[in-house]
Amino acid sequence: MRLNEMSKTELEKFRNQALSKYEEFKSKNLKLDMSRGKPGADQLTLSMPMMNVLDENSDMNTENGLDVRNYGLLDGIPEAKKLFSQMIEVSEDEIFIGGNSSLNLMYDTVARAMLYGTVGSEKPWAKEEKVKFLAPVPGYDRHFGVTESLGIELINVPMTENGPDMDIVEKLVSEDASIKGIWCVPMYSNPEGITYSDETVRRFAALKPKAPDFRIFWDNAYCIHHLNDTPDKLLNIMNECKKNGTENMVYIFGSTSKVTFAGAGIAFMGQSKENLAHMKKIVGMQTIGFDKINQHRHVKYFKDMNGINEHMKKHAKIIAPKFSVVLEMLEKEIAPLGILEWKKPNGGYFISVDTLDGCAKKVVQLCKEAGVVLTGAGATFPYGIDPRDRNIRIAPTYPPVHELELAMELFCICVKLASAEKLILG
Amino acid sequence: MRLNEMSKTELEKFRNQALSKYEEFKSKNLKLDMSRGKPGADQLTLSMPMMNVLDENSDMNTENGLDVRNYGLLDGIPEAKKLFSQMIEVSEDEIFIGGNSSLNLMYDTVARAMLYGTVGSEKPWAKEEKVKFLAPVPGYDRHFGVTESLGIELINVPMTENGPDMDIVEKLVSEDASIKGIWCVPMYSNPEGITYSDETVRRFAALKPKAPDFRIFWDNAYCIHHLNDTPDKLLNIMNECKKNGTENMVYIFGSTSKVTFAGAGIAFMGQSKENLAHMKKIVGMQTIGFDKINQHRHVKYFKDMNGINEHMKKHAKIIAPKFSVVLEMLEKEIAPLGILEWKKPNGGYFISVDTLDGCAKKVVQLCKEAGVVLTGAGATFPYGIDPRDRNIRIAPTYPPVHELELAMELFCICVKLASAEKLILG
Repeated sequence: MRLNEMSKTELEKFRNQALSKYEEFKSKNLKLDMSRGKPGADQLTLSMPMMNVLDENSDMNTENGLDVRNYGLLDGIPEAKKLFSQMIEVSEDEIFIGGNSSLNLMYDTVARAMLYGTVGSEKPWAKEEKVKFLAPVPGYDRHFGVTESLGIELINVPMTENGPDMDIVEKLVSEDASIKGIWCVPMYSNPEGITYSDETVRRFAALKPKAPDFRIFWDNAYCIHHLNDTPDKLLNIMNECKKNGTENMVYIFGSTSKVTFAGAGIAFMGQSKENLAHMKKIVGMQTIGFDKINQHRHVKYFKDMNGINEHMKKHAKIIAPKFSVVLEMLEKEIAPLGILEWKKPNGGYFISVDTLDGCAKKVVQLCKEAGVVLTGAGATFPYGIDPRDRNIRIAPTYPPVHELELAMELFCICVKLASAEKLILG
Repeated sequence: MRLNEMSKTELEKFRNQALSKYEEFKSKNLKLDMSRGKPGADQLTLSMPMMNVLDENSDMNTENGLDVRNYGLLDGIPEAKKLFSQMIEVSEDEIFIGGNSSLNLMYDTVARAMLYGTVGSEKPWAKEEKVKFLAPVPGYDRHFGVTESLGIELINVPMTENGPDMDIVEKLVSEDASIKGIWCVPMYSNPEGITYSDETVRRFAALKPKAPDFRIFWDNAYCIHHLNDTPDKLLNIMNECKKNGTENMVYIFGSTSKVTFAGAGIAFMGQSKENLAHMKKIVGMQTIGFDKINQHRHVKYFKDMNGINEHMKKHAKIIAPKFSVVLEMLEKEIAPLGILEWKKPNGGYFISVDTLDGCAKKVVQLCKEAGVVLTGAGATFPYGIDPRDRNIRIAPTYPPVHELELAMELFCICVKLASAEKLILG
C-alpha cells in the first residue's frame, strides 16, 4: 500500500514499526561509510600487477627516445597520448596528459581562466564584475566546490532523462554574457547515472553563448565504467563541435582514478589544438611536466584500449552486484510504498534517490545516528542547498557486500520512518 | 698575460688565434646541450632499484592504516611527512606533501595568493593595484617566470657572497607595501652556488615588511646536494622565524627531483601551522590528494634520512668530476687572461660565470652556432635582461664527461674570442 493512501492511524502504526526497527538497528553500533565514490579494496587489488610492470632493468625510454626519468615533455609521453586520447575520443594532438587528478586539471583550468582568461576572453575572468557557471542538478559536489571556491556564482539547471534541460541552458547562455561555463558529467552522470542523449550533445555543440569565452566542462569520468553488457552510448562532442566550428568551447576530462588507483592514476584533458596551445603556454610556467614514469607504467600495463576495456570488465564484476544489492533492496522494501524515486544506471558510481520533499536531510541524519555515513543531503546541489530537500546520493562501491546490505537495510528503514513522519505532520 | 694589458696588435693576434680554433670546432658539427640543470642518465639509474620496492603483493597501507591506493590524505602519508620534514628541517605538522614538482607548489602558492590572498592579506593579490617581488640576481629563471606570468613586477636585488644584499632587501620591504615576496635559493643558490650566511638568514627572519602578507619563497632545492666532504651549512630559517614571531612569513620548498627522478619524485612544502591550515582549506577544493603510492614507494626505498644522505653521496661521486672538468678548464684556459669571474660551489647544480660586461650574449651565441646550447644569456635575470650582459649559467651535470670536456673547450674559445673582440672595439 502506498503511504499517501494510508489513514493517519495506519501511518502511525507504520511509523511505529519503522521506529522500533530503527532502534533495534541503532543498538548494533554500526560504523559504515557510504559517503564517497571510492573504489573498494578488491577493485584496487585488480591493478596490483601494475606494480610489477617496471623493475630496475626496465627500458625507461619513450618511443621518441626520451628518458621518462628526466625532465621534459610538458604534455605527456606520446604513448600515453595515444592510449588515453582513444579513451576520451579525441585525437593524439588534442590531449594533455596531467598528473594524478582530473579534479586538479579542472580546478587549474578555471583558475587559469580567472587569472589569464582563455582563448576568446576579453580579459581575465577575475577582472569581470561577475562570473557565473551553470550547474545541472543534482550534480557533483566537487565541481560546485571548485567554482564556489573561486567566487563564481552557480545557477541551478534541472536534469532531465536526457541530460541538462537544454531549453534552459540555451536560453541562459545566449542571454547572459557573465555565464562562462557549465559543469557536465555526460556519461553515467554523478549522481543520477544519466547519459546525455545524442540530441543533448548536439545542442551543446551548437550553443551560441553570449560570452565569447564560454566553456563546457565535459567531465567524462565514467566513459568506460559500464556495469553490464548493455552500456549507454555517448555521442562524441568534439566531433559535433567541429561540425559547428565550436571546438574551442569544450574541455573534456578523464582519468584512470577508478580504472587503476584512486589518486595514483593518470588524469588527462582533451581540447582543441588552439585551446591546448594556450594552456601549454601557461602550464609551462607552472611546472616542467607531470610524472612520466607513472604514465609509462600505465601504458606498459594496459598496452591498448582493449587492455583497459578488459580490465574494466573485472571492475564491473565486482561492483555490479553492489548496485544490485541497493536496487533490489529499494525495489523490495520501498517501491510499493511510493515514497522514493530512483534510476537504474548502466554505469558510473552512484545511485541517486529522491525522497518525498523535505525528507532527505532527515534520512541522512537518521542513518548517521545509527552509524551509517551517507553523502550529506544537499551535497548534490550548489552551496549545499537542495531546494526540495529530497536528493540523496548512494555510493555503493566502497563497502563490502555484507556491509552494504546492512547499510541499505538501515537506509530503507530511515526512508520509511522519515516519510511516515512527514506525512503524519502533513 | 691579462687581456686588458695587451696592445691592440697583441689583442688582434689573440683574437685571430681564437677565431681559427673556433672555426676548427665548428667543423666538428657538435650537438651538445648544457642548457638545463638536468641529472645525467647515470644519476637517474642510481634510483632504479626503487622500481623494485613495490610489487603486486606489497602492503599498501600507511602506518595509520590507510590504503595508499585509494582517495584521501590531502597533505600526504604520515611516513612521507616524517621523512621529508627532516630534509627541510621543519616539524611533521609543518609539512605538506605535494605532487611531482616543487615548481608547481610554488606557482600554485603564488596563484593562490593572487586569487584568495594568504594569512594576513587584506584582499587577494589580484585585487591589489600592483604586486611586486624581489628577485636576487643572478637567480633561477623559472622562479622569475612564475611571477612574470602572473603579472607580478620583479625588482632586481644584487647577490653578495653571503646571499642577497640584505641592506637593500630590508629597505625595500619596509618601505613598499606592494612588495609581497622574494625568491630565494638559500643553499647552493641557482646559479652561483652561494649559501646564505647565518647573518643573512637571521636578517630574513627579522624582516619587518610593510605588507602584512609578505612571503619569503625559500626554495631549498639543493639542501642535501653536496659535492664534497666540506659542505656548506644553512641556518634553519623556520627556527629563526619562530624566535621573531615571523613564522608565517616563510614558505620552504623541497623535492626529490634531483634525488630520485626528475619529474617523478616527491615535492613538499614546509610552513607554519597557520599557513598550512589556510593552504589545505583551498587545496582541498583543487584536489582530493596527490600520488600516495609514489610517496609510499619513496619512503620504503629510503627508509630514513640516512638512506637519503647515503644516496646523495652516489650522486656526488658522479657529478663532482663534472664540476671539476669545468673548473679546471676555466682555471687553465681563462684564469690567466682576467676576462672571466666564477665561484667554486660546494654543492648544487650550476657554475655561474661573469664575462666582461657586454659579452655574455655573444659567448652563448658563438657556442650555439658551433653546436653547444647553453642556458640563454640573460635567463638568470628577470625579463631575460642582464643589465651588464655578463652572467652565464653553466649546467655541467647532464652531458657525459667527454662531451662536457668538448663543450668546455669550445666555451673557453668563445669567451676568448668574444672578450678580445670587445676589447678591440674598446
